Amino acid sequence: MTSRAKPKRSTTNDYARFYSITTRWHDNDVYGHVNNVTYYAFFDTAVNGLLIDAGVLDPASDTVVGLVVETRCSYFASLTYPDRVEVGVAVEHLGRSSARYRVGVFRAGENEARAQGEFTHVYVDRASGKAADIPAPVRAVLTEMRI
Amino acid sequence: MTSRAKPKRSTTNDYARFYSITTRWHDNDVYGHVNNVTYYAFFDTAVNGLLIDAGVLDPASDTVVGLVVETRCSYFASLTYPDRVEVGVAVEHLGRSSARYRVGVFRAGENEARAQGEFTHVYVDRASGKAADIPAPVRAVLTEMRI
Amino acid sequence: MTSRAKPKRSTTNDYARFYSITTRWHDNDVYGHVNNVTYYAFFDTAVNGLLIDAGVLDPASDTVVGLVVETRCSYFASLTYPDRVEVGVAVEHLGRSSARYRVGVFRAGENEARAQGEFTHVYVDRASGKAADIPAPVRAVLTEMRI
Amino acid sequence: MTSRAKPKRSTTNDYARFYSITTRWHDNDVYGHVNNVTYYAFFDTAVNGLLIDAGVLDPASDTVVGLVVETRCSYFASLTYPDRVEVGVAVEHLGRSSARYRVGVFRAGENEARAQGEFTHVYVDRASGKAADIPAPVRAVLTEMRI
Repeated sequence: MTSRAKPKRSTTNDYARFYSITTRWHDNDVYGHVNNVTYYAFFDTAVNGLLIDAGVLDPASDTVVGLVVETRCSYFASLTYPDRVEVGVAVEHLGRSSARYRVGVFRAGENEARAQGEFTHVYVDRASGKAADIPAPVRAVLTEMRI
Repeated sequence: MTSRAKPKRSTTNDYARFYSITTRWHDNDVYGHVNNVTYYAFFDTAVNGLLIDAGVLDPASDTVVGLVVETRCSYFASLTYPDRVEVGVAVEHLGRSSARYRVGVFRAGENEARAQGEFTHVYVDRASGKAADIPAPVRAVLTEMRI
Repeated sequence: MTSRAKPKRSTTNDYARFYSITTRWHDNDVYGHVNNVTYYAFFDTAVNGLLIDAGVLDPASDTVVGLVVETRCSYFASLTYPDRVEVGVAVEHLGRSSARYRVGVFRAGENEARAQGEFTHVYVDRASGKAADIPAPVRAVLTEMRI
Repeated sequence: MTSRAKPKRSTTNDYARFYSITTRWHDNDVYGHVNNVTYYAFFDTAVNGLLIDAGVLDPASDTVVGLVVETRCSYFASLTYPDRVEVGVAVEHLGRSSARYRVGVFRAGENEARAQGEFTHVYVDRASGKAADIPAPVRAVLTEMRI
């Protein structure tokens, strides 16, 4: 395979909702910047947090839940604890049982993403693990986050 | 050894400074509550964050740094993502080269700590690892946090 | 309060069982050593892992579970990824509904702990959260780990 | 945008080297499986660990270091602590200053990846942050990992 073109760096205009996250001492790795893995923790926290805040996700009791089947992230510029982070979220694709989010990580107050990626949930029945339709209340919230 | 008495649950009055932290999806463990380990990440983040905010800690360049030599935590009540957390910090003991902090973890808006503990830094020369006096600017900040 | 005496550094003879853990890139923090918080992840992993391996803990389905009510750790010497770690575990106190473990973190092949601490579980009914007797199969395993 | 085809699930034959990792209690999230974020910690640990083991990476002192600019992961089947993990690594693309790895996460003893992805390092001068040629000893190791 060959080298791949990097995606165009996104701005706050490319997202429908934002979720605030504080960084932590140990987000920084030995190179003094927020470790690449931590950005995926930001993705998880922002996407699920927006659904919880909207009242359509209860991880303790929901019988149909979204499982992560694919994620990706491109890194443009580093963050460092104690930066404050704003995570932009929008829905890029909304299927019968899956939703793909666009996610961007911004230093609070900035307009250009320092990192951005995608995050795909497939909904399944929690007990059986079989694919399930996205519950109607979730779909209503995701529809508002389309871009 | 025998069983040990649990410490008295502290309140916001027992702390000198507070530091805000947002919880994350994966702070919750399989039992649905913030995992006990994560509270120590709150300690680390709050103590160092207050020093950074006061302008007396630069992890990238300081030649004398505080290393953690002892920590402890007692857990009274659980937290759950997406709770917001306030970490109370006070200096209980201030020696020539060491400082012991009292740390309390509160759900934002509450008066009683959900967990509390201690966190002890010993200052060392970063290159040699030998004990060093607490730098004067750090000492000035810590003195204001005595309780 | 005053400064406190550091506990005596333990050796492999002070533990009843050992659990192997591999370190990870991001266990290291900005100072280049395994972050203090990570040792508590070792505690959690070793104690629960020994119970799971003994067949007396199933986090997915057990109706009586051990919740962490108190932990502590003293740090004597640092570890650095990619060190391999052996965690020593012994039961120091075994009550009706609680167990306190002694835990030591060793670099594989060494005799002296690089860090050591305590870890206390209180057993509760998972649904109600009320204190419960330690289940008999767990107690049998813990009794063999007394020291 | 539309839905995307999932990549073909890889097997151990698709990788040049393997790196062993033990899972941890808190790798599991509230759904009882290793959290999606943790797989990226496996990637980081395996790629860097293989370079350290080969003697061509010293995070404490290297003046030219690999920074992560892009990662991705597809999830096929879950893992659960206390599973043991083998991470397969191969070099898919080797440029002048960048290397793209294929990474697969296997439950120890299995032939099909439970998750797989890509991990791209760009080498930079640590002080200036400017792109740098991959150091010759690193290149020699990566060339052996081409597939």
